[in-house]
Amino acid sequence: MKLKRFHFDINNLIDDTITLTGQDAVHAKDVMRLKIGDEFIAICGNGLDYYVKIVEFIDSNIICKVQKVEQNLADPQVDVTLYQALLKADKLDLVVQKATEIGVQKIVLFQSEFCVAKWQGKSNKLDRLNKISVEATKQCGRSEPITIVADYFFSDVLNELANYDCVIFAYENAKDYGILDIKGDYKKIAIIVGSEGGFSQSECQALCKLKNVHCITLGHRILRAETASIVASALVMAQFEK
Amino acid sequence: MKLKRFHFDINNLIDDTITLTGQDAVHAKDVMRLKIGDEFIAICGNGLDYYVKIVEFIDSNIICKVQKVEQNLADPQVDVTLYQALLKADKLDLVVQKATEIGVQKIVLFQSEFCVAKWQGKSNKLDRLNKISVEATKQCGRSEPITIVADYFFSDVLNELANYDCVIFAYENAKDYGILDIKGDYKKIAIIVGSEGGFSQSECQALCKLKNVHCITLGHRILRAETASIVASALVMAQFEK
Repeated sequence: MKLKRFHFDINNLIDDTITLTGQDAVHAKDVMRLKIGDEFIAICGNGLDYYVKIVEFIDSNIICKVQKVEQNLADPQVDVTLYQALLKADKLDLVVQKATEIGVQKIVLFQSEFCVAKWQGKSNKLDRLNKISVEATKQCGRSEPITIVADYFFSDVLNELANYDCVIFAYENAKDYGILDIKGDYKKIAIIVGSEGGFSQSECQALCKLKNVHCITLGHRILRAETASIVASALVMAQFEK
Repeated sequence: MKLKRFHFDINNLIDDTITLTGQDAVHAKDVMRLKIGDEFIAICGNGLDYYVKIVEFIDSNIICKVQKVEQNLADPQVDVTLYQALLKADKLDLVVQKATEIGVQKIVLFQSEFCVAKWQGKSNKLDRLNKISVEATKQCGRSEPITIVADYFFSDVLNELANYDCVIFAYENAKDYGILDIKGDYKKIAIIVGSEGGFSQSECQALCKLKNVHCITLGHRILRAETASIVASALVMAQFEK
């Protein structure tokens, strides 16, 4: 049976003892009904999987002994950032969950000219997205949570793109050149996907003239913005992570 | 501005006049508020896009004149069937919507040994999935609706697989062999994705021993069943549709 995964704070690892606290402890005890002697995988974001056995419950904390430690094999071998223009309603929930599962390392939400959705003051929304991502991290076997950043504008995105080996821009006017046509051993990759309204002409021009930007098509059909993000992430991971 | 798409019945094409009837006419008139002189693309599932202009409203029908007819370029160039084991809750909604956008031609829902969800008697559910698919067809620019079949068992799936050039089985124990490693000019392709519980050992064995079956991994992370379907469909279209 597949072992469950729970997060712990690195400060709660002392010798071969890990103490699970907070929400994860509550979830393990009250929802998953783990008992003394049960095993699970404890993760803290350092790339390691701690296989532990429960030895004691103290108040709402769970005391565990480490049985073995292994390198986590689900953590991505390429560093992919998804720049996603703001989307309406709960579409960002889907993007965050699926991009985390697929292997994206960082998601940057930004406002572009044609965005209908706005971000200002939605700190609750960021909490929610982080929670979705942490759940997806555990579910898909990754050991490290992904980073989600909001409150960017298109100009902030432009300013960062020189930091990447390869920038992949899902461009609605691109033809006959897809992600699988990009060859190279790229390790630090950015994906840029627009909002429901796409990008303005001047935004497209600003992106297309950058030297490391590949303007690609995602196929012959018009994908919804959230589908484009999921598809582009899947193609990038399949193409560049060996 | 992108023209909207509405379905019409092929019998309602007479010379250069198309009559839009039923739900699509109601939607065009009352929701999209189209008026006389407005243009849209009328589709009827024959691979053609009819560019039309509204000339008259008669009762709840819309009478249009055909301006030009073009081959639809969004219809997939490969024939992909997604065999999807039944999933819980509304996950099939997501699979159907995304697979339609991505370019799958047919979706076959089937019950396997470890399926928690059952299909029996859910004709409402099939109506709902068909409706989602028709909407996605129009949204992504395809001219032909996809086919959705339910009420299959695993054995029915097995019996059909000889009809495909290439069968792609998303197998959780596969390693180092992904969809992008499959080379060949395949035109008729099946994708097989399990339920939340995966496949039983005997089901896996039955699939793996078929000659045209490729047992592939979808990467280093454990994908939810619905994510696996979306990712596999995206990779197949990118790899085999030129």
